[in-house]
Amino acid sequence: MTDHAQYLIQQEPFYQPLHQEVELYQAAWDERLPVMIKGPTGCGKSRFVEYMAWKLGRPLITVACNEDMTASDLVGRYLLDADGTRWLDGPLTTAARIGAICYLDEIVEARQDTTVVIHPLTDHRRTLPLDKKGEQVAAHADFQLVISYNPGYQSLMKDLKQSTKQRFAALHFDYADPDHEADIIARETGTPRDQAVRLVKIAATARNLKGHGLDEGISTRLLVYAARLINRDIAPRLACRMALVDPITDDAEIRDTLYHAIDAVFGADGA
Amino acid sequence: MTDHAQYLIQQEPFYQPLHQEVELYQAAWDERLPVMIKGPTGCGKSRFVEYMAWKLGRPLITVACNEDMTASDLVGRYLLDADGTRWLDGPLTTAARIGAICYLDEIVEARQDTTVVIHPLTDHRRTLPLDKKGEQVAAHADFQLVISYNPGYQSLMKDLKQSTKQRFAALHFDYADPDHEADIIARETGTPRDQAVRLVKIAATARNLKGHGLDEGISTRLLVYAARLINRDIAPRLACRMALVDPITDDAEIRDTLYHAIDAVFGADGA
Amino acid sequence: MTDHAQYLIQQEPFYQPLHQEVELYQAAWDERLPVMIKGPTGCGKSRFVEYMAWKLGRPLITVACNEDMTASDLVGRYLLDADGTRWLDGPLTTAARIGAICYLDEIVEARQDTTVVIHPLTDHRRTLPLDKKGEQVAAHADFQLVISYNPGYQSLMKDLKQSTKQRFAALHFDYADPDHEADIIARETGTPRDQAVRLVKIAATARNLKGHGLDEGISTRLLVYAARLINRDIAPRLACRMALVDPITDDAEIRDTLYHAIDAVFGADGA
Amino acid sequence: MTDHAQYLIQQEPFYQPLHQEVELYQAAWDERLPVMIKGPTGCGKSRFVEYMAWKLGRPLITVACNEDMTASDLVGRYLLDADGTRWLDGPLTTAARIGAICYLDEIVEARQDTTVVIHPLTDHRRTLPLDKKGEQVAAHADFQLVISYNPGYQSLMKDLKQSTKQRFAALHFDYADPDHEADIIARETGTPRDQAVRLVKIAATARNLKGHGLDEGISTRLLVYAARLINRDIAPRLACRMALVDPITDDAEIRDTLYHAIDAVFGADGA
Amino acid sequence: MTDHAQYLIQQEPFYQPLHQEVELYQAAWDERLPVMIKGPTGCGKSRFVEYMAWKLGRPLITVACNEDMTASDLVGRYLLDADGTRWLDGPLTTAARIGAICYLDEIVEARQDTTVVIHPLTDHRRTLPLDKKGEQVAAHADFQLVISYNPGYQSLMKDLKQSTKQRFAALHFDYADPDHEADIIARETGTPRDQAVRLVKIAATARNLKGHGLDEGISTRLLVYAARLINRDIAPRLACRMALVDPITDDAEIRDTLYHAIDAVFGADGA
Amino acid sequence: MTDHAQYLIQQEPFYQPLHQEVELYQAAWDERLPVMIKGPTGCGKSRFVEYMAWKLGRPLITVACNEDMTASDLVGRYLLDADGTRWLDGPLTTAARIGAICYLDEIVEARQDTTVVIHPLTDHRRTLPLDKKGEQVAAHADFQLVISYNPGYQSLMKDLKQSTKQRFAALHFDYADPDHEADIIARETGTPRDQAVRLVKIAATARNLKGHGLDEGISTRLLVYAARLINRDIAPRLACRMALVDPITDDAEIRDTLYHAIDAVFGADGA
Repeated sequence: MTDHAQYLIQQEPFYQPLHQEVELYQAAWDERLPVMIKGPTGCGKSRFVEYMAWKLGRPLITVACNEDMTASDLVGRYLLDADGTRWLDGPLTTAARIGAICYLDEIVEARQDTTVVIHPLTDHRRTLPLDKKGEQVAAHADFQLVISYNPGYQSLMKDLKQSTKQRFAALHFDYADPDHEADIIARETGTPRDQAVRLVKIAATARNLKGHGLDEGISTRLLVYAARLINRDIAPRLACRMALVDPITDDAEIRDTLYHAIDAVFGADGA
Repeated sequence: MTDHAQYLIQQEPFYQPLHQEVELYQAAWDERLPVMIKGPTGCGKSRFVEYMAWKLGRPLITVACNEDMTASDLVGRYLLDADGTRWLDGPLTTAARIGAICYLDEIVEARQDTTVVIHPLTDHRRTLPLDKKGEQVAAHADFQLVISYNPGYQSLMKDLKQSTKQRFAALHFDYADPDHEADIIARETGTPRDQAVRLVKIAATARNLKGHGLDEGISTRLLVYAARLINRDIAPRLACRMALVDPITDDAEIRDTLYHAIDAVFGADGA
Repeated sequence: MTDHAQYLIQQEPFYQPLHQEVELYQAAWDERLPVMIKGPTGCGKSRFVEYMAWKLGRPLITVACNEDMTASDLVGRYLLDADGTRWLDGPLTTAARIGAICYLDEIVEARQDTTVVIHPLTDHRRTLPLDKKGEQVAAHADFQLVISYNPGYQSLMKDLKQSTKQRFAALHFDYADPDHEADIIARETGTPRDQAVRLVKIAATARNLKGHGLDEGISTRLLVYAARLINRDIAPRLACRMALVDPITDDAEIRDTLYHAIDAVFGADGA
Repeated sequence: MTDHAQYLIQQEPFYQPLHQEVELYQAAWDERLPVMIKGPTGCGKSRFVEYMAWKLGRPLITVACNEDMTASDLVGRYLLDADGTRWLDGPLTTAARIGAICYLDEIVEARQDTTVVIHPLTDHRRTLPLDKKGEQVAAHADFQLVISYNPGYQSLMKDLKQSTKQRFAALHFDYADPDHEADIIARETGTPRDQAVRLVKIAATARNLKGHGLDEGISTRLLVYAARLINRDIAPRLACRMALVDPITDDAEIRDTLYHAIDAVFGADGA
Repeated sequence: MTDHAQYLIQQEPFYQPLHQEVELYQAAWDERLPVMIKGPTGCGKSRFVEYMAWKLGRPLITVACNEDMTASDLVGRYLLDADGTRWLDGPLTTAARIGAICYLDEIVEARQDTTVVIHPLTDHRRTLPLDKKGEQVAAHADFQLVISYNPGYQSLMKDLKQSTKQRFAALHFDYADPDHEADIIARETGTPRDQAVRLVKIAATARNLKGHGLDEGISTRLLVYAARLINRDIAPRLACRMALVDPITDDAEIRDTLYHAIDAVFGADGA
Repeated sequence: MTDHAQYLIQQEPFYQPLHQEVELYQAAWDERLPVMIKGPTGCGKSRFVEYMAWKLGRPLITVACNEDMTASDLVGRYLLDADGTRWLDGPLTTAARIGAICYLDEIVEARQDTTVVIHPLTDHRRTLPLDKKGEQVAAHADFQLVISYNPGYQSLMKDLKQSTKQRFAALHFDYADPDHEADIIARETGTPRDQAVRLVKIAATARNLKGHGLDEGISTRLLVYAARLINRDIAPRLACRMALVDPITDDAEIRDTLYHAIDAVFGADGA
């Protein structure tokens, strides 16, 4: 019923390996260990999972977690049909049946019933009990669970329980180092490399402000945005304000600091 | 099924460009970057989006966000029909299918599930997973997401997450400068320009009180209201009290200050 | 389908204009500006709206707001029918379709989704998007929105947002001055004017206690109650205790103060 | 459809008038004023309303309010039927249609939507809008609303709003004076008058402790319980402990004080 | 429809009367007074009610109250059937109809709507209004309401309202005195009396710690567990740790104290 | 209807007895006493219950508790069918009917209605009242209830009530001592015993940090993960970081401490 093919990644996603993350993930996959990917916003966690799914030739089912999501949103529910109620598998159940990689993005946002529901899938049992249906789903041999997690958000209220954490092997991600990041931007946007280097310099300033007025630094994604606006003939100074600074802060002082950093890199007359 | 035409803006909305916002939006649209528009109440954010939709010839679907809105209100839900349940696309899904500009007004009011649901539409994936339907909607090539955001409201409890913010290019809006604002009022209401200038002077007083007893200044919209009441032969002093002061404050001192500002501009005998 | 006639006010409601409120409302109506009516409990806000609806010959749809009311209660919902689900317009939608005055009584009591839902009806768009039905209702040319608001209740938790307030022209109401109030009581109850004057004197005492042990003063409505009980041969002192004092306070000291005020006006032997 | 007769009080309830409450209620009824009855637990408020309904020959519909009750519980709701949904009037709507006295017991326990829903029934409009049904119910000429209210419970969180209070005429109730109370007990239980006098003496002690360790004194109802247990050959001391003391306190000191009061009245050998 | 017989207690439950509780309950039953049974966890409250139901030959319907229970769980609800909705009586309604003793176990755990719903059944009216069904159920002549209540739990947040308490006659329960308790254990488990005496000694230590690190002492039920484990050849010291100490505390110090008490009674070599 | 066989454990689970837990559980089973298993995350509680179910040849029904689980999730609910509503037993009801061991994993996470619903199944009654169905389920003679409980999590907000605790016999679990734990790892993963000993040494460091920056120590499960990654040719130092440290902490100091422990055991050049 569920179309296995629709979850396959058709084209190789652009991914630039930075450390040994590909080998480590491969080993975890070989053992079907559940994997937790930690790192800041926009550093490429989702892209990496997509890349690995493509590399392994496995379907990928992604769920963006949120605090209003219930266990039923993952597992499935009964729908009313012409012939009464009909069961509809949720994305986690579908993944368990077809042997997909199930990627729960920003798992800490979810309520506990979402996180507890994965427990029997992440230990030796590898089963998913559908209590409401009276069925025990034995996970497909190729099923794997991956979660992402931003430690910068972690708070006492929003943290995974130890009984959840201790079911995962973890990979730490961070922004690429300046050289690699400039490469990534240049290759993704076609912008000249020196332009990309300038953008990365601005990002460096913002990342130093993290914890000193900024919750997060400027992500690689936003640097790509700036390059794309410049490609459309927007003056670099304006493009950087629009893509790098204004989205991430409402604080006038922080904004000025970052505007100055832009001016220093592109020249105050850059716009 | 969904009528594409009903979302087209039929007539050019009156819009007075103030800076380079039209060019910047155009570049973001050319790159299909998601856009965040920041600014105070009633400064013309919604009008601008309408204007751009008209200019680009794209359908516009607007959703006024609120804290009781669920992800289903955006994405869609099953309805019970004579033949069982039937899926009804929500406004975000409709916009993704028909290639509309989807404008989420006052996004910070929404609960997190509303804001997280837009994530896969706002990165390289440009897809909207309908988990409850088991469908992945690939966004139409012309789909664009726009959100508005009033930084004056922003609080610790009600702020976008960085992982949401870092998916947007941002445009900063503010009230027009006095000259432009008087033009806008005169053109929208047909009131004589000197009358419009007087109204803008009263607004200046109120905007200086922002943060000193007033949460927001007097918006351009309220100045238009006052001009329209004066056009209906209401004495200017009464019209200003009714349209500019009484709606925005219950504080007796603030009210007196603003009443005096009105008297100073129109004369205490103006009513 | 909806019976337009059932919302028309059949008889002229008794209403005693106090200032220029009739002319101001008329001008706002001519411009179809949304109107906010502020004032204390029982000073005649609802009566005034009814009077204006009668005067303008427009149907009036009143909704008593409360904190458990949802946007669906205003806008409408799907009901299950023999042939599946059927949409039922809510009172706001009905008003927008038939061109009624929609009066949201005590709007601050409502949750935010109730207040945000009115936004597109209260700016240049004058439309009501029925997201759940996929329909955009263009408001009838005679539709007008009126809200009432008791500033005495206003608290940080229960206040309208500026983005809501700045969509209304406001009228301030208060209790009538003693002379007018005695007239109103005499005309509504047929009680002799000197009796009415005595009742108004007692109200004056209570209104001075507002903020000093009483949340609100004695309303005109309660004075009418007292007059009606006296008409039924209840001793004035007992009638005043029953209608003016006992409903509004449980505080023994405040009660004694007001009992003394009654004795002073009617004589301690008045019962 | 609704059986008018089932709400009629068949037999005269035993009620001992204490002051002029019967005449005052009669006058309020003649004017169809909404009535608020205040007083402590178990002093006879509900009995009085029943007595008046019997005396006036009107059906009585009683609703015990609680904090989980919704407006729909009062007004009505749609039920699913073989032919789709069917509307079922709630008790308030039934009362408005058949001209019953609707008695909302312990109204302060209810949520605001319960209390606001009665507003249009308690002013000159005397209508009940069934928003979900699109119907305006005009109240029957004999409909009257009565609410009860225990000021001892009143707290900041649980108090009626002034806009609700100022729709009622109020009657204050309290426990009967000792002589009347002993009469009531003797007549209701057939216990000898001197026995009843002794029970009332114990109640006096407890009522003095109100606010000094006891939230409420011993109600007339509990005195009746004690008399009935004594009638069943339970020793007076044991009966009093079981009916008067143990239900109302878990505090050891208060309990001892009251046990001593019992011993003083019945003698320590009374059991 | 409801099977009266299924609620009858078939066999005499083992119950050891300790004071005059049987006679007191009998008198309350003869008068159909509602009864409140107070006492600590596991002291035999439920057993006593069962015993009295057996003795009186009345059916017994028990409801374990909890904070998520709604009034509908007690009173009944509509279910959807092939022919539309069908009403299903809740346990309280069933009890009122068939004349059962309805036992609400741990009533303080319930939400207020559960407790208020019993009011009209517990005064002279003895009726249960099914508001949602529009029916007034007159209680069967043999219906009686019994509630249990653990004063040790009582807190400001979780206490019965006085208006509820003052509808009950109360019986105080406590653990049996050592001699009786040893008898109970010996008779229920067949363990030798000296063994039972030893277990009771350990309980004495724990009960002295109540309020000093333990919320509750060791109940008679746990003593019975220990005896049954010893009967299965578990060493007394291990059985006591498993049944008496480990279930009730996670505090290392308290645990050591109780382990020492076990060693003192059975000897440190007892395992 | 329910397939008894699907809940049988087909193969002997690997389980290494550490103390007398097998005999103690056996005795509790013989007496059908409810059992509470306490211990830290990942120490083998679930594995032990599975082992005992296999040993006793009883079906096992496991429920992972969470704070959003309702009593209906355990007991059952009505589903809408072609012929109206149909009752579906929940896992607890199924277990009671077929005589399974019902294992409620992490019971403290559940809401009170979940925990109270088990009361009548865990005393002499051994019945489960299905209030919504009007049925009393008498538990099968082989039904047993087992709950798990992590005292490390216990907080004032999340603790079992004494009236629940005092229905269980308790077994205390902890991590195996180093020798046994190394055996377990070697046997489960095929890793050489000296490798397993090294992993256990790292765990010892982490377990000493419990309460000093770590909520929980490293579980046996994570040691098994590390061994499996090493088996896949991942360098031991990297495997240990990925499996033992990164999943359980985001604290930089704690991480460094544990990284040093790894280096000390495997040598800083181990990767």
